[in-house]
Amino acid sequence: MAHPLITLTTDFGTASPYVAAMKGVILTINPTARLVDLSHDIPPQDLLHTALFLAAALPYFPPNTLHVVVVDPGVGSSRAILYVEAASQSLLVPDNGCWTLLGEPRRVLFLTQTRFWRPVVSATFHGRDIIAPVAAHLSLGVDPTELGVPAESWQRLAIPPPVIAPGSIRGEVVFIDSFGNLITNIESGSLPSSANRSVRIQVGEQEVTRRVRTYSEAERGTLVGLVSSGGQFEIAVVQGSAARELGAMVGTSICIEWSSSQEAIANPS
Amino acid sequence: MAHPLITLTTDFGTASPYVAAMKGVILTINPTARLVDLSHDIPPQDLLHTALFLAAALPYFPPNTLHVVVVDPGVGSSRAILYVEAASQSLLVPDNGCWTLLGEPRRVLFLTQTRFWRPVVSATFHGRDIIAPVAAHLSLGVDPTELGVPAESWQRLAIPPPVIAPGSIRGEVVFIDSFGNLITNIESGSLPSSANRSVRIQVGEQEVTRRVRTYSEAERGTLVGLVSSGGQFEIAVVQGSAARELGAMVGTSICIEWSSSQEAIANPS
Amino acid sequence: MAHPLITLTTDFGTASPYVAAMKGVILTINPTARLVDLSHDIPPQDLLHTALFLAAALPYFPPNTLHVVVVDPGVGSSRAILYVEAASQSLLVPDNGCWTLLGEPRRVLFLTQTRFWRPVVSATFHGRDIIAPVAAHLSLGVDPTELGVPAESWQRLAIPPPVIAPGSIRGEVVFIDSFGNLITNIESGSLPSSANRSVRIQVGEQEVTRRVRTYSEAERGTLVGLVSSGGQFEIAVVQGSAARELGAMVGTSICIEWSSSQEAIANPS
Repeated sequence: MAHPLITLTTDFGTASPYVAAMKGVILTINPTARLVDLSHDIPPQDLLHTALFLAAALPYFPPNTLHVVVVDPGVGSSRAILYVEAASQSLLVPDNGCWTLLGEPRRVLFLTQTRFWRPVVSATFHGRDIIAPVAAHLSLGVDPTELGVPAESWQRLAIPPPVIAPGSIRGEVVFIDSFGNLITNIESGSLPSSANRSVRIQVGEQEVTRRVRTYSEAERGTLVGLVSSGGQFEIAVVQGSAARELGAMVGTSICIEWSSSQEAIANPS
Repeated sequence: MAHPLITLTTDFGTASPYVAAMKGVILTINPTARLVDLSHDIPPQDLLHTALFLAAALPYFPPNTLHVVVVDPGVGSSRAILYVEAASQSLLVPDNGCWTLLGEPRRVLFLTQTRFWRPVVSATFHGRDIIAPVAAHLSLGVDPTELGVPAESWQRLAIPPPVIAPGSIRGEVVFIDSFGNLITNIESGSLPSSANRSVRIQVGEQEVTRRVRTYSEAERGTLVGLVSSGGQFEIAVVQGSAARELGAMVGTSICIEWSSSQEAIANPS
Repeated sequence: MAHPLITLTTDFGTASPYVAAMKGVILTINPTARLVDLSHDIPPQDLLHTALFLAAALPYFPPNTLHVVVVDPGVGSSRAILYVEAASQSLLVPDNGCWTLLGEPRRVLFLTQTRFWRPVVSATFHGRDIIAPVAAHLSLGVDPTELGVPAESWQRLAIPPPVIAPGSIRGEVVFIDSFGNLITNIESGSLPSSANRSVRIQVGEQEVTRRVRTYSEAERGTLVGLVSSGGQFEIAVVQGSAARELGAMVGTSICIEWSSSQEAIANPS
C-alpha cells in the first residue's frame, strides 16, 4: 500500500485547530498517507449520532480501510482506546461504544504500546497524541497486534429498540439528517405493506397520511413516510424539513398501527 | 491518469453520512481516485445557488476534471441523470439545470447503463447508488459513451436576467457569500463608468452612495458597490455583512440609474 | 517531492465558491499537488482567531510543509503578501500578522514577481489570483527567492498579554473552541500549583472552584479550570459549553489570585 487511506470522523468542527493538528501528526509520521474527511460536524460528544453515522457510511469503504473516529466525551479518564476490526473495516476509537452498530467485531485490542504514541500525551487530546500517531504507524504497515493487548470486553451503546407487537410498532427518531428528514429505529422489514390502507402512522402528535417510495411522488410540502436510503422507516417533508415543521427531535416517538388481522410484511423494495 | 481527480459538490452537509458513503463507493471501485471536496454546504436543494457556485468555481479546474454534483430535489422521480461536458469540464449531475451557467455543452448523455451503477439502487439516494459508481468507473478510464445515450434536450435553469434600459439597470441579488456580500445578476460590463457621479444605486430601500474598486478603499462599516471577483456588480459592507445590515436576501432588488445622456460603459478593470 | 503537500486555511466557508476556485487554480498549475483542508471556518476576518489556530496546528506538520492562509480583511489595499518560513513551516499569507505566534521567522519575502500570478488579478480575491498560483509554483519546485524580495519589516498582531503580579494573573479569553471551552492567554507555566488550595479563579463574574487535570475528573456540568491541550489555562464545563453557560466571549476577563506568599510554580504535567 503505497498510498494508504485513513478516514477521519470527529466532533471537533474545523473552526478549532484540533482536526488540523491530527492531520499534521499523521502526515509527519507517514507523509504519503491519504486523508479522507468523513465528518468533523458530528454533534459534540453525541455517541448515538456517531454510531448511526458510522453504520451508514463505513460499510461502503474498501475492505480494511482504516477509520479514525474521535468523539470522546471520556477523554483523559481511564476509558481505553480500541483498535477494532468489524464490518470488514478497521477502526481506532475511544472505548465508548460508538461502533456498536457495525456488528460483531472480528478483533478488538486495547492500545497499550506507548512507543506508537506521541512522546508526551496530553490529558485532554488523545486524538492527537495517541490515535493519530497509531493510525499513521498502522498505515506504514505496523501489524495491529503490536499495538496492544486483546480486549475481552468493551462498551456497547444502548440503541433504543422499537417495540413490536401484533398490529403495531412503536419506535422513535434516532437521527435527523441535514435536510431535516427523521430517521427512525424502525427497520423497513418490520413494516406492514404499503398497500395496506389501514395503516396509521403517528410522529409525536402528528399523523402522517401519505406513504411514498421516494420524495418526488408527493407535492412539495407534503408530510410523507418512506424507506430511507439506509433501510429504516423515515419521515420527511417533501423539499422541506420534517424536523422543523413537526418540531421533532431525536427521541420523538413514532407509532405505526395497522389492522391486527394483517401481518407485518417486508417492504418489497 | 494514475491518480485521477474527482471533485464533490453536494447539499448534504457533513453531519449526515451521505458524503462519506459516496466517498466510500468511489474508493471501493477506484482506490486511487483523488477526491477533492468543493462544497457540502450548498443550501439544501437550492439550484440557483448551485448554478452560481459551479459557474464561479469549475472554470478554474484543469480541463476534463470530473465534477460530481449532487443537489437533487427530484431524486427518485423520472428526472434523468446526465453526463455533461461543458466549459472544458466533465460533470455528473441530476438533470435539473444546475450546470446551466457553464454555457453550451459539448456533449450531454443520459446515464442508462446500469452495469456501472450499484447493484441495488435506492429510491432516495442516487448520488451514492448511481452517480458515485459512475464517477469511479469514468476515473478508471471508461469511455463516457459507454454510460448511456446522447441527450437531445435537458433542463435549463431560469436565472433571472436584469432589465436593461437607457439610463437604468434593474436586477436582483442572486447569491450571498459567506461574508454577507451581495452578488447580483448585473454584469460589470453593463454598468456606467465609476467616474459618472450622477449614478444612483439602490438596493431594496437603501441607497448605496459609494463605489469602490476594492473593499479597503472605504472605512470599515461603509456600504459600497463594486465589481465582484467573478465580474458581477456586488454590494458589500466593508469588514461587515451587507446581507445582515440591509436585511437583504436572494431576490432583493437592485436598481442602478444614471443620467440618460450617458451610455453604459464597460468598467475599465 | 512527487506529491507535495499544500494545506489550506481560510475564512471563506464552503457555501461560497472561493475555496473551490483556489483549489482549481492550484491543481491546474500542479495537477499532482496534494491539498489538505485545515479550516475554511475561521470566523470572517478574525486575525486573532487565525493566529491562535495556526499556532496550535502548524507545528504538528512535517517540516517545510507549505501552508496557504487566506484571512484577508485588507484585500485589494497596498498590504503586501508574504512568503514566510517560521516554526520549520512555510506559509503564504497576507501581511496582517496572523502568523505572529509562530515565533521569529527564518525568512520573510514580499511577493512581487507577477509571472507566478494569474495573468489578471482581481481587486477582491488575491487568494485565487496571487496566493494559489504562487503556492502551486512553489510545490513544483520554484525556489522561494524567485518569488519576490526580502522583507525587512512586517505586521505583527497584538496578542493581549496577561498581567502577572505577585499573587495574581489577569488574563482573558482569546479563543473559544467548538465545544465552548474557553482558551486563555495564560500559559500553564505561570500558574500556581494545583495543590495550592488557596487559589481563587474568576472568569467574568463567575468563580471557578474546581481545578482538574482532565474533563472526566469532574461530574457532567461542572465548571472546571485545567491546562488545555495547547498548554494554556482553559475554562470548561464538563460535557457542556462554558461559553454558553457563562455567556463568555473572546475578551472576557480571567483573574487568578493566590496567597502571595506562594510563588507561581509550573504545573508538573
